[in-house]
Amino acid sequence: MDHAADVWATLSRIRAERPLVQNITNFVAMDLSANALLAIGASPAMVHSSDESAEFTRIANALVINIGTLSASWVTGMRSSAVAARNARKPWVLDPVGCGATAYRTDVARELAGLGPALIRGNASEILALQGEKRGRTRGVDSNDSVEVARAAARELAIDYSCVVGVTGEVDYVTDGRTTLAVHGSDALLTRVTATGCALSAICGAFLAVEANALHATAQAFAAYATAAERAATGVAGPGSLRWRLLDELHHLDEAALQRGVRIA
Amino acid sequence: MDHAADVWATLSRIRAERPLVQNITNFVAMDLSANALLAIGASPAMVHSSDESAEFTRIANALVINIGTLSASWVTGMRSSAVAARNARKPWVLDPVGCGATAYRTDVARELAGLGPALIRGNASEILALQGEKRGRTRGVDSNDSVEVARAAARELAIDYSCVVGVTGEVDYVTDGRTTLAVHGSDALLTRVTATGCALSAICGAFLAVEANALHATAQAFAAYATAAERAATGVAGPGSLRWRLLDELHHLDEAALQRGVRIA
Amino acid sequence: MDHAADVWATLSRIRAERPLVQNITNFVAMDLSANALLAIGASPAMVHSSDESAEFTRIANALVINIGTLSASWVTGMRSSAVAARNARKPWVLDPVGCGATAYRTDVARELAGLGPALIRGNASEILALQGEKRGRTRGVDSNDSVEVARAAARELAIDYSCVVGVTGEVDYVTDGRTTLAVHGSDALLTRVTATGCALSAICGAFLAVEANALHATAQAFAAYATAAERAATGVAGPGSLRWRLLDELHHLDEAALQRGVRIA
Repeated sequence: MDHAADVWATLSRIRAERPLVQNITNFVAMDLSANALLAIGASPAMVHSSDESAEFTRIANALVINIGTLSASWVTGMRSSAVAARNARKPWVLDPVGCGATAYRTDVARELAGLGPALIRGNASEILALQGEKRGRTRGVDSNDSVEVARAAARELAIDYSCVVGVTGEVDYVTDGRTTLAVHGSDALLTRVTATGCALSAICGAFLAVEANALHATAQAFAAYATAAERAATGVAGPGSLRWRLLDELHHLDEAALQRGVRIA
Repeated sequence: MDHAADVWATLSRIRAERPLVQNITNFVAMDLSANALLAIGASPAMVHSSDESAEFTRIANALVINIGTLSASWVTGMRSSAVAARNARKPWVLDPVGCGATAYRTDVARELAGLGPALIRGNASEILALQGEKRGRTRGVDSNDSVEVARAAARELAIDYSCVVGVTGEVDYVTDGRTTLAVHGSDALLTRVTATGCALSAICGAFLAVEANALHATAQAFAAYATAAERAATGVAGPGSLRWRLLDELHHLDEAALQRGVRIA
Repeated sequence: MDHAADVWATLSRIRAERPLVQNITNFVAMDLSANALLAIGASPAMVHSSDESAEFTRIANALVINIGTLSASWVTGMRSSAVAARNARKPWVLDPVGCGATAYRTDVARELAGLGPALIRGNASEILALQGEKRGRTRGVDSNDSVEVARAAARELAIDYSCVVGVTGEVDYVTDGRTTLAVHGSDALLTRVTATGCALSAICGAFLAVEANALHATAQAFAAYATAAERAATGVAGPGSLRWRLLDELHHLDEAALQRGVRIA
């Protein structure tokens, strides 16, 4: 199976169709998410208010909900858009940032997870907390739990919510509860740049907009992102440089780069 | 007529006087708008709450209202500041981001347009939607309509609201309903960097703060920005690099660069 | 006294312990603050809503409150977290952005200053306005008052609120009302990059999290930041480049760099 060719085919469709990806995301991640979507070839829009979020979801091709900088008025818009996406059978991504850190955050993440996301993407701590594991100890938004530990929780979560779950860490795992794919690559320095996980969730929205198989779409998005990150990190001066080089590499991803970088197993 | 010399004269006044430009803008555009204003030589401030926005407008030299990430509580502050600017005869800019995408957004944009902006700046879709053209099909925040098509709508809009209208696209047009100027330049890659249109609106605020003729101030701001963008895009590695190079070029704009780059017709 | 060695010791503790720094900060500063904290080796989290802010403060190691883009609902979360930090004897930093520009802003800054911050960090205008000096003329978020003028006000403020006060300008001053330290360095171009003062306040949070002496922690944070800024500014192309180079330099700060850069007197 030629995974790189599949990633390239999906990426080419994104660039041809320019799917409109609605993001209800946190204040830290907005800029990088929008720029990552533009760099990959999609069309981002940030529309969050309950006065218009559901109406906008009906013209969008995919929706990404990220609970990073949560507040009650934003949850109203998130809920409206999630329901609108489910009713219109449009794929939507839940990024449960910081799930487990506070009771409020865990409650909101679980409520949203019940509204039919195509994909839940988080780090190990967030996935464990969402799944209810007592082992999960979220400490801020960084992960303390190994991805290996979270793999089992991800499978259970995928079955419980009938969706795909993606866990990122040293190795990324994507599962629908039956099949689990491992995606290798990326670079540890990426964890020193804020919102790079959030931007990956946004990019998953673009892949899901054009590829109906959510398991494959997610693994492809992870592999494309890891390829760009790995290229961006080569010889980089530091995390400040890495941020803009990541965008340059996402913009330039081509079949040759993917053939060298994509490692899905 | 030496347009480059005029742009240089106005830019020099901005650097000497450092006008205070109040921005009530969207979450995605805040960082780039503030940095663009600093790079051009102005002094930015982001003050949006109705608890203080109008009071702040009274000490500001210009106001920029951008409806990108709209919500009801922000509209209250926008309305207060727009009225305060009008009453104090201070120039203010309306950037109707995504106008036409939802009913709420179009309603808010039209209400604000009625509060006496000196300039309305948008892309073709937004200007068409604001003017009420049925041809306008806003799809997210990117434009699907050619600037040429929007030129007539811009003229009508300028007459209806007694203000200057600036439409950006492959060629930019600035009109007060009687005179229409075309501004050439910039680079297509800029459309792959988020909030670059919003940052231009912010920069228009700085030009309007020091140049009373709004038609000229806007055309000059457009030309200065296009010159910087064109220089930043020369040999650039991708959209990630373009974003910071744009700021470097705005900071370094001098008379020689403007003589080579300014094309107003 | 080997100040550079002290800075290095504290920085090493930050990198070893990765303190969790909660930021309730403005929309412009979020991205740079989070990236600066990651670059220095700390773990940032942006949690502001009153539904969870105090609960989060109880797991954080330090708290930073910045009133840049103020609104009533955010003040509720600020107040809750400040009280939670005080009750748990955790250090917290107040950055009174734009204090003096509007009555609302001054009132909120003064109320928060009364809730036991370990450090108040601002520019000369903000410190003067907070202290009630009639000389202070805040004009937006930039400072019009010389740091020299503010030094006396800082000392009085430190005594009034029993905390450390840091004033940044051409020379930075840190005082607890009895001892006043001057920190030299940095680069004037940094004032042309938005939110660099806010990012310094965030970094002070990381230093306060691991160093109990607030006067020393603050002077060390100022000196580390000035060293990174000075290195980043050397041969830099403009303010756009300076922003990401600052992050690269913060990431790479080592004992040799600090020995050359730290100037505390």
